[in-house]
Amino acid sequence: MTIVHPPKPGTALWVYAHPRRDSLNDRLLQAGTKALSQRYEVAVSDLYAQDFDPVLSRRDLGDLADRPGNIAELAGEAYARGQLPADVQEEQAKLAAAELLVLQFPLWWYGPPAILKGWFDRVLTSGFAYGDLDPERGVPRRYGDGGLVGRKALVVVTAGEDERSIGPRGISGDLESLLFPITHGVLWYCGVEALDLHVVHDADSLDAEGVEQQVERLAARLGGIEDERPRLFRRLRDGEYADTRALREDLAPGRTDLGIHLA
Amino acid sequence: MTIVHPPKPGTALWVYAHPRRDSLNDRLLQAGTKALSQRYEVAVSDLYAQDFDPVLSRRDLGDLADRPGNIAELAGEAYARGQLPADVQEEQAKLAAAELLVLQFPLWWYGPPAILKGWFDRVLTSGFAYGDLDPERGVPRRYGDGGLVGRKALVVVTAGEDERSIGPRGISGDLESLLFPITHGVLWYCGVEALDLHVVHDADSLDAEGVEQQVERLAARLGGIEDERPRLFRRLRDGEYADTRALREDLAPGRTDLGIHLA
Repeated sequence: MTIVHPPKPGTALWVYAHPRRDSLNDRLLQAGTKALSQRYEVAVSDLYAQDFDPVLSRRDLGDLADRPGNIAELAGEAYARGQLPADVQEEQAKLAAAELLVLQFPLWWYGPPAILKGWFDRVLTSGFAYGDLDPERGVPRRYGDGGLVGRKALVVVTAGEDERSIGPRGISGDLESLLFPITHGVLWYCGVEALDLHVVHDADSLDAEGVEQQVERLAARLGGIEDERPRLFRRLRDGEYADTRALREDLAPGRTDLGIHLA
Repeated sequence: MTIVHPPKPGTALWVYAHPRRDSLNDRLLQAGTKALSQRYEVAVSDLYAQDFDPVLSRRDLGDLADRPGNIAELAGEAYARGQLPADVQEEQAKLAAAELLVLQFPLWWYGPPAILKGWFDRVLTSGFAYGDLDPERGVPRRYGDGGLVGRKALVVVTAGEDERSIGPRGISGDLESLLFPITHGVLWYCGVEALDLHVVHDADSLDAEGVEQQVERLAARLGGIEDERPRLFRRLRDGEYADTRALREDLAPGRTDLGIHLA
């Protein structure tokens, strides 16, 4: 069984996780989807508007709700049986079609809002977004090789903090590292190549002109998004983590920062 | 107005975010709370059993639900007005009492399950868990100096992966870094000192004996938890991030890994 879902060219999915209308995020969503619509067919998953339930639970397991075992594995089996809940199936269908994925959210507690975290927990099931050992290739479909290969993703994040607080030596930690669980742990794991983060700093203190500038900056970037090249991480299948699942000693020797996983 | 909540000595709060009974996590919870009960009064927040809603939304804003502005700031104002929802008030009361906090969860997508992420999003409001500029001290109550000072926390996490995959050079990224948004971004931000992570590796493939060993290992650790010393991060108020909110150049010079924030 192949788990790869070839995207439909010219299709985008914009996943939006912000609760408020008339907010900076709302402005970015409206302008961003409009800009993208000139060249893409854009589907939107507005998680708050959809009242998306982010809690992975027995309801995600179909007939297997009472079977003991790891819930993620059971959800994967429910996927294989076509028994996932309708809301999850719908999100999977949108994802399967999209060649460009946008994840837009405000930075809350240095990560995504719960409603987006739970979208990962529930939608990216085993068998759909990643897989165990592929007999033909001899490696699992993970890290650069998942079910969603052939896609690019743009993470659009608003942060109350300034560029220095969440910069490389900032007190809150480098944003690249804080979001590594998404760019690498979620996206790359499933085969999706993340473009450079799109960060809006000082999001709570922008005046009307500042908001306008940010709206235009995002629209301008989306205007040329097809030409951007992602920053790739290392692939599991290339043998750089041979046998031990730790990076080979001859690569980035002596280092232990997350940057060692960049290809 | 002071925002500091002195804990009640001998009181612990165990926050548990796993959906399944008769699981490894359930075993760890039962054995862990039993071990702790010998010397602590232990409250448990079993988020799945409580059907905790992790989605921060207009319902968290009391009378301010329709006021424009940043939702986290408005939730802080709802806190000051005593208008937070009952479930959040209850969690805050448990937290305010506890001198020891345990956060137990399975690692899902390299972070906490959505139900726990949303517990952070909703419970740790401004004014309760952290604060703006303190006029007496001249610095904000953040990073080592929040509303929850005087507390220690133990993060208990189960991971399907082995020690090498999420070790310092592991393909999934170092677990210390993956959980930095919790140990530093959540806990330390609010003034809580995190003890060394308690990690159970290979959680999906343990046999009965392996489970027993892990249960005993956790109980044994909890037996001596009072004597453990936390690994402290740098404090905002100490001036090491002076003016720029980036770490002073003379400290950990040239480095940009998250380890630079350890004191």
